[in-house]
Amino acid sequence: MTDNSINLEQDPNNPLSDVEIAQAHTLEPIGDIASRAGVPAAALIPYGSNKAKVDLSQLDRAEHGKLVLVTGISPTPAGEGKSTTLIGLADALRVAGKNAIAAIREPSQGPVMGIKGGAAGGGYSQIVPMEEINLHFTGDFHAITSATNTLAAIIDNHIQQGNELGIDPRRVTWQRCMDVNDRALRGVVTGLGGPAHGVPRETGFTITAASEIMAILGLATDLPDLKRRIGAITIGQSHDRQPVTVDDLGVAGALSALLKEAINPNLVQTLGGTPTFVHGGPFANIAHGCNTLLATRTALELGDVVVTEAGFGSDLGAEKFFDIKARAGGLNVDGAVIVATIRSLKYNGGVARESLNEENLEALAAGVVNLERHVENIRKFNVEPVVALNLFTLDSEAEREWMTTWAKDFGVALAEAEVWAKGGRGAAKLAELVLANLAADSRQIYDPAQGVEASIRTIAREIYRADDVEFSPQAERDLATIQEHGWDQLPVCISKTQYSFSDDPKALGAASGHTLHVRELLPRTGAGFIVALTGDVMTMPGLPKKPSALNIDIDEQAQISGLF
Amino acid sequence: MTDNSINLEQDPNNPLSDVEIAQAHTLEPIGDIASRAGVPAAALIPYGSNKAKVDLSQLDRAEHGKLVLVTGISPTPAGEGKSTTLIGLADALRVAGKNAIAAIREPSQGPVMGIKGGAAGGGYSQIVPMEEINLHFTGDFHAITSATNTLAAIIDNHIQQGNELGIDPRRVTWQRCMDVNDRALRGVVTGLGGPAHGVPRETGFTITAASEIMAILGLATDLPDLKRRIGAITIGQSHDRQPVTVDDLGVAGALSALLKEAINPNLVQTLGGTPTFVHGGPFANIAHGCNTLLATRTALELGDVVVTEAGFGSDLGAEKFFDIKARAGGLNVDGAVIVATIRSLKYNGGVARESLNEENLEALAAGVVNLERHVENIRKFNVEPVVALNLFTLDSEAEREWMTTWAKDFGVALAEAEVWAKGGRGAAKLAELVLANLAADSRQIYDPAQGVEASIRTIAREIYRADDVEFSPQAERDLATIQEHGWDQLPVCISKTQYSFSDDPKALGAASGHTLHVRELLPRTGAGFIVALTGDVMTMPGLPKKPSALNIDIDEQAQISGLF
Repeated sequence: MTDNSINLEQDPNNPLSDVEIAQAHTLEPIGDIASRAGVPAAALIPYGSNKAKVDLSQLDRAEHGKLVLVTGISPTPAGEGKSTTLIGLADALRVAGKNAIAAIREPSQGPVMGIKGGAAGGGYSQIVPMEEINLHFTGDFHAITSATNTLAAIIDNHIQQGNELGIDPRRVTWQRCMDVNDRALRGVVTGLGGPAHGVPRETGFTITAASEIMAILGLATDLPDLKRRIGAITIGQSHDRQPVTVDDLGVAGALSALLKEAINPNLVQTLGGTPTFVHGGPFANIAHGCNTLLATRTALELGDVVVTEAGFGSDLGAEKFFDIKARAGGLNVDGAVIVATIRSLKYNGGVARESLNEENLEALAAGVVNLERHVENIRKFNVEPVVALNLFTLDSEAEREWMTTWAKDFGVALAEAEVWAKGGRGAAKLAELVLANLAADSRQIYDPAQGVEASIRTIAREIYRADDVEFSPQAERDLATIQEHGWDQLPVCISKTQYSFSDDPKALGAASGHTLHVRELLPRTGAGFIVALTGDVMTMPGLPKKPSALNIDIDEQAQISGLF
Repeated sequence: MTDNSINLEQDPNNPLSDVEIAQAHTLEPIGDIASRAGVPAAALIPYGSNKAKVDLSQLDRAEHGKLVLVTGISPTPAGEGKSTTLIGLADALRVAGKNAIAAIREPSQGPVMGIKGGAAGGGYSQIVPMEEINLHFTGDFHAITSATNTLAAIIDNHIQQGNELGIDPRRVTWQRCMDVNDRALRGVVTGLGGPAHGVPRETGFTITAASEIMAILGLATDLPDLKRRIGAITIGQSHDRQPVTVDDLGVAGALSALLKEAINPNLVQTLGGTPTFVHGGPFANIAHGCNTLLATRTALELGDVVVTEAGFGSDLGAEKFFDIKARAGGLNVDGAVIVATIRSLKYNGGVARESLNEENLEALAAGVVNLERHVENIRKFNVEPVVALNLFTLDSEAEREWMTTWAKDFGVALAEAEVWAKGGRGAAKLAELVLANLAADSRQIYDPAQGVEASIRTIAREIYRADDVEFSPQAERDLATIQEHGWDQLPVCISKTQYSFSDDPKALGAASGHTLHVRELLPRTGAGFIVALTGDVMTMPGLPKKPSALNIDIDEQAQISGLF
């Protein structure tokens, strides 16, 4: 989501939209951006003049840059502007003389047609070309969709053509996917029409961002590792309840061939001219929620300072960044930024959405516990965070002063940022503090060797501050299956509401002493983690009554409007 | 399908596969190919170093080249090598000093995973980079899939959110699509799971090549025309049986925005260095089966001689080329080539597939009626064709002589071609004859103003040589609906078996005096034609028992093998 509601320096009577700001900007040729980043010419694969892929085989893969993780407080409808702050910070670091590179997730196309929003920053802290990044981009999501659905066709064809592996059609867990918000595809019956048209079974589609192949692309260390992980995907069970994998079906090579281009990171630019890798976009609950490991590593090979993000608040995204992505890739996190806004803290302090424009120091004091908890959590990973206070026009002087005093009292570095309206110029102080805090020796919060149950309990206790974890009967059975099949030492990927530290989305602020309810455990043996579901997770969004598709248009000069 | 079974100059003990020949070739930079074609530098949108799109807005759209349509006899399992001959001919025309440009369809990715094959020519008459052309290419099919499925989501969301237009869920004719061979998606029920997850209804998926948006992209004359056609798509009926269109739903702009890049033609090269537009890939029965009108026109703007193809035999593909595509775009066809092989003519003469390697002059004489019929048919469009006899290793001297004598007696120009093994060098004589026959003033076979029923009867009589046309009760009702809604003057797109001039796939040779059975009429108001179904049409293929996905692999150097 962008945070272009109200901001400093924006004329409230005639605000420019994100797409208008982006379209008014003259982009630098992508070849110049690549040279700036230090990409060897032979490694650049242009997609038009404004975007490119970087051929991994042309890089030497030695990393030397410092890694800064940008995370946030618990998300609220008020909007925190995490991506926008990240982009402004990257531009500010470049202004400060660093070879800064940003690495962020690719936006999912489905939601673009639904609710106004995207994942390309906002205002003067955007990545461009924004229409192309939001519509198709370089085709990575489509390649993942192809691979996912090709596998589904191979499974159903195997069942239809004799079913040599004895796959139980009722126990196929592999779902098709599509990068469209389509609630009608959540639950479907396929194979109807008679014997020539397959074996009927109940199944469903997820949005592409929620697919396991998206998670795999995000964690693969190279092409052979990608193929190995795809081969290890569990697609369901046989009639004798044994797991069936992609390697059993013999199509890991074909599916990997479909991802030949998708594995190469995409390079674009910020409005400030900072090289930015935009690659991979897994969900941050059912998956780990960060851009690809390969993009982060490529950025670390090329840049001095790499700023990268994790999804949602630090309890979800950052925890998974440290415990899943950094572990998989041997990454050290050298510094961290927690993005907060006064409005969101007041919201956490109990103020209704419609009253957020009014000064309210009591609510700020009540809500700041959410930020405090996120600061404490990041410290548990042995990283000292900097708080970025992303300013909005109606933040009062008194509120801003209150925050400054709070930071001093609490003992954490805080910088105000005005990135939406000022781009990198609005994040100079933040950049300075970040550069002064780049010495962390980061760690993980649990050791997967202790087993899945213990890993979940550790995260629940240390990060969510739960007193207890309750496993449903289904989850108990899943734990037994996981142990039986030798998956008990995989890391866990907890799917929990992003609005609370607990599994109750209404418990704002800094919930503690609660019980975490684990409903079900899903083995993602290709991605290499166990998903623990707490509460309901929607893996296929729907469209609202008035979808933004109604406003999107393209004119005779191929200029797109109404996108954001 | 490629025709790389056995051919001249191919060492039968150690034949190279198409992909091996392609991978051994050093491609010229796409910028050089573009310059050769005369593409202005500002119009070139590179996709890596070997493929590009051409920005239509940078061209002046004045056509001056001569257009040669390559069609074939009725297809047989023996393979005619139509694409291969087309590519060899284009290379030969270039060797003859012409600025020749080829324009062909994009291959569909789904079948690549199914039965060994593709649509990029074969042997030394291929277009390259063949792996990239066959896997994802520049994303056009994916963009069409996105637009098709976004529309489906908008329809179901409209029904779910109050159904202001009163759409009858039982009468939604719009289907989702996917570029995967997946028989299990032919018949599905969507919207299961309860009130929050949509209104259940029975529907299905087609392969992307069979989608109406593919047909629309193929016929659009520019971006505004594309948007107009998308707006005119009929998605189904309301409860009071009135047609509901995309314009009623208000998303023509959003769907067109998704096709912003797809509308620009793709440029690649042949192994002989001939610039080749590969753009659009509609089915040749349920749609018109040619590359896009925009690609053909762009080629005619840039080149002296443009060779382009139509799907299947001349009764299906060429008829639609003249009556649908050429009519929509005001194209004149200046010359035509009918591709035939001795093996296929013997097959049409009744020889079983396993005996095609044996000399059989009687069968050849019996089967040549198929070729004669195709020659006569092309002449009905006022174009004098040249027959290209695509040679295979085991064609005997006597058989070749028999064909030469036949051509003299029948009174048609014939040239032997050895394009698989020799590339353009194998088509010098063919090129010479084609250049000597470039003076046609082509026409259509029917006038749509006479109404759909009369148009179908004209094609049946003139091209299929049927004595009568029988409309099923459903087709009669469809005709009434078509008249009621003012669609009766649209051209018709007959969906008929490609194996026979009749609707009986087993009636080989030159069927005549038969009755054509029209089962159902489907209005395609966006594409701008009425599909007439005769017999069953499969719009979503399945996979064979041993799909070629099992053989496809990618190694550590990202080299793909087993593709063909």
